[in-house]
Amino acid sequence: MCTNPPITMTTLYWTPHAWLQGQWQPDVLLEAGADGRWAGITPHTPCPEQARRLAGPVLPPLVNAHSHAFQRAFAGLAERRASVSDDFWSWRDRMYGVALRITPAQLRAIAAQLYLELLRGGYTQTCEFHYLHHREDGSPYADPLAMSWALADAAADTGMGLTVLPVLYAHAGFAQPQLRDDQRRFKTDADWVWRASQAINAAARPRVQAGVALHSLRAAHAADITALRALVGDAEVPIHIHISEQPQEVADCLAAHGQRPMQWLAHHHPLDARWQLVHATHSTPGEIAQVAASGAGVVICPGTEANLGDGVADLPGWLAAGVPLTIGSDSHATRAVMEELRWLDYGQRLVLGRRNVAADPPAQPSTAARLFDAMLAGSARAAGLSSWGLQPGARADALVLDTAADGLLGVPTDHLLDAAVFSADPRPYAAVLVGGEVVLEHGRHGRQAAIASEFEGVMRALFG
Amino acid sequence: MCTNPPITMTTLYWTPHAWLQGQWQPDVLLEAGADGRWAGITPHTPCPEQARRLAGPVLPPLVNAHSHAFQRAFAGLAERRASVSDDFWSWRDRMYGVALRITPAQLRAIAAQLYLELLRGGYTQTCEFHYLHHREDGSPYADPLAMSWALADAAADTGMGLTVLPVLYAHAGFAQPQLRDDQRRFKTDADWVWRASQAINAAARPRVQAGVALHSLRAAHAADITALRALVGDAEVPIHIHISEQPQEVADCLAAHGQRPMQWLAHHHPLDARWQLVHATHSTPGEIAQVAASGAGVVICPGTEANLGDGVADLPGWLAAGVPLTIGSDSHATRAVMEELRWLDYGQRLVLGRRNVAADPPAQPSTAARLFDAMLAGSARAAGLSSWGLQPGARADALVLDTAADGLLGVPTDHLLDAAVFSADPRPYAAVLVGGEVVLEHGRHGRQAAIASEFEGVMRALFG
Repeated sequence: MCTNPPITMTTLYWTPHAWLQGQWQPDVLLEAGADGRWAGITPHTPCPEQARRLAGPVLPPLVNAHSHAFQRAFAGLAERRASVSDDFWSWRDRMYGVALRITPAQLRAIAAQLYLELLRGGYTQTCEFHYLHHREDGSPYADPLAMSWALADAAADTGMGLTVLPVLYAHAGFAQPQLRDDQRRFKTDADWVWRASQAINAAARPRVQAGVALHSLRAAHAADITALRALVGDAEVPIHIHISEQPQEVADCLAAHGQRPMQWLAHHHPLDARWQLVHATHSTPGEIAQVAASGAGVVICPGTEANLGDGVADLPGWLAAGVPLTIGSDSHATRAVMEELRWLDYGQRLVLGRRNVAADPPAQPSTAARLFDAMLAGSARAAGLSSWGLQPGARADALVLDTAADGLLGVPTDHLLDAAVFSADPRPYAAVLVGGEVVLEHGRHGRQAAIASEFEGVMRALFG
Repeated sequence: MCTNPPITMTTLYWTPHAWLQGQWQPDVLLEAGADGRWAGITPHTPCPEQARRLAGPVLPPLVNAHSHAFQRAFAGLAERRASVSDDFWSWRDRMYGVALRITPAQLRAIAAQLYLELLRGGYTQTCEFHYLHHREDGSPYADPLAMSWALADAAADTGMGLTVLPVLYAHAGFAQPQLRDDQRRFKTDADWVWRASQAINAAARPRVQAGVALHSLRAAHAADITALRALVGDAEVPIHIHISEQPQEVADCLAAHGQRPMQWLAHHHPLDARWQLVHATHSTPGEIAQVAASGAGVVICPGTEANLGDGVADLPGWLAAGVPLTIGSDSHATRAVMEELRWLDYGQRLVLGRRNVAADPPAQPSTAARLFDAMLAGSARAAGLSSWGLQPGARADALVLDTAADGLLGVPTDHLLDAAVFSADPRPYAAVLVGGEVVLEHGRHGRQAAIASEFEGVMRALFG
């Protein structure tokens, strides 16, 4: 008995160049299937008559592996210093002041504007490290996941892919069993987090999935981690945790446990490829070796780490160890992936006094290509997706470069990625595709006016 | 005997807010005189019927105090590392390879595209630290200033204001009396430089003036500096010099003279307010005090210094000493002033581990305002102009913010500058005015197609 193959609708795109397997390949036909995934990607193919000719060379987008959407409302509003001291902790106090006031409707409006800006900035999937769950007084919403649905609605408003990571947030510090009062909207335990994650996955919204997160070793103690690990079991979901962002956190962990954060975590709670260590700024070679051996990934957030004065990660160490890397826009002061990659290497250059730190000659002399491909390789795992990028089976997402943009104009094709990272306007895209459809053309989105208007109203309500 | 006042044509603009004396003032009438200078700037004034209402709040532009226009062709093309070592010096070798090939016509095309991009990036005056003077074989052009006129023509093509600084470039190093062969296009002496400067000023092209420059202490030795100082006398022209950019340069100066570069310069060649020290990255508190006492200014180039791995300047030291500061786009990897200011403070934060380093509470809690106003105060002197900014007598230049731009939308007015520096798209301008005329609207320039086409042709000739 034989069956006819199902009739499917595919959309054909063609581009003069696409970034495939770490290089620019010419004359590439891209077939997006009816399921919104790439059905085929074939270089060295003349443009068929029925294909839509894309306006420029095509890059795969990257996953934004770390986002706190509500903090977008606060971007640019914390750049003042009232007294001698201003650091991560004073910033956090001010950020809590905003977090305590945001409603689900406001979160949806903020996140929609953010996701639109992130699409403009070159990301098509965002991982929400989501801890703002409860009502202003700390009691649960009638639907306990009201804030998670607000994020999912915002993603649907814009076309952004979303990985929700409900956060286990149970303690105010290593030696503080209770939360502070201004952390009351965040309070969860392992059961809550795992039920939330399962409920989000069960809802099966298009382009939305869930994993889990632990806020940090100060907010999730050993018993919490053990409980969540037991619930998750061997489910294939991403497990994110903030770690070693601040020198103070390293010192507190040493005082509490006699070990550094990554050292303690890897020793007591075996890591694997589901784990994503966010920041990992303050590391030792021994910790890097432990993480590398586990298969866990690291999420670097260059813009936020610079804004908060966190410090400079050991990028050469992480790259040499082959640890999967991704970028996170985190607090959203910076929302363009090319600016993040640019200043990721620049931070290294300023501290180390040499250029092109991430390059790896002779295998990969291009700093931009090494960074971009490292982030590409880490993307699927960080977001809990089975695949990512310009390959059959992955969601049919793409960035179409505008070769007339400042900084790309006249650049030879083999240097286009270098110029996009290190010289161009950080949003040099003629179009952005998600799931086989064009969601942005020259930065314009079909719903941008309504989204901007809602966002402006929320900003007025919060800060007016 | 009395005379009637001359009848002048003024253009009236009105904006809901303008940045005047370090704060946002409401309802501002700006009168541009027929001479292209501000005739009056009056806050708290209702919009008169005949005024053109600007689309957003108005900032003064900044002077770009350090540019090597030809290096724009190279932006984004040097981000590869062929071997273990890559630093300022290996970058310079590659840059020379480009410098050796550029013709006057090519320089005009490159500079025109650059100046257009710099206008988009928020600069309306550029200081050209100009050392690429002679033919490819080192012989003079029929008109020895052919390359200077190419820059002036490019400025005229775009509306950019230009300060040409012909550079004294005579030696390859502290202990090397001759130039290297690949420096043959740069060779000048004090007489050549002073004649060039006078000739450019005598030509009296609109919006073009000249000062002088010394390449560095390694390329201009004591006798050269003495000779140029004698020729310049007390003429009110800016005198720029690269200094203390590289640790190697500091070491070489110590070896040659027993003193650090700024220490030696200030001791042997009294500085004054005409002098502009470019980079000044590696300083001691004693050197900062010497420079501050002289009235000289410092030109910081954050994007280039990061790109080249030069190091992080002592920004708190320079600010505390009250030294006039400006920004330079230098090698032009970065061409937007807001990105320069953002990462100027971020570099400090990464190294010092605290936030809002440039803020000065309680006098000025805003980091962006402190940096922007410092650069504004240094602008006129660096460019050799008698005044600069939103004040009567200064050229009628302005940046009109687009409050619908990503990162400015919904931001309260009193935080607009903070958000422009630290959160917005780095080119958030609805319009740019030069000399009382709108030269850019939403980034579009009347001649952009022709300029882009010329530039693309040059890039193909150089790198195709």
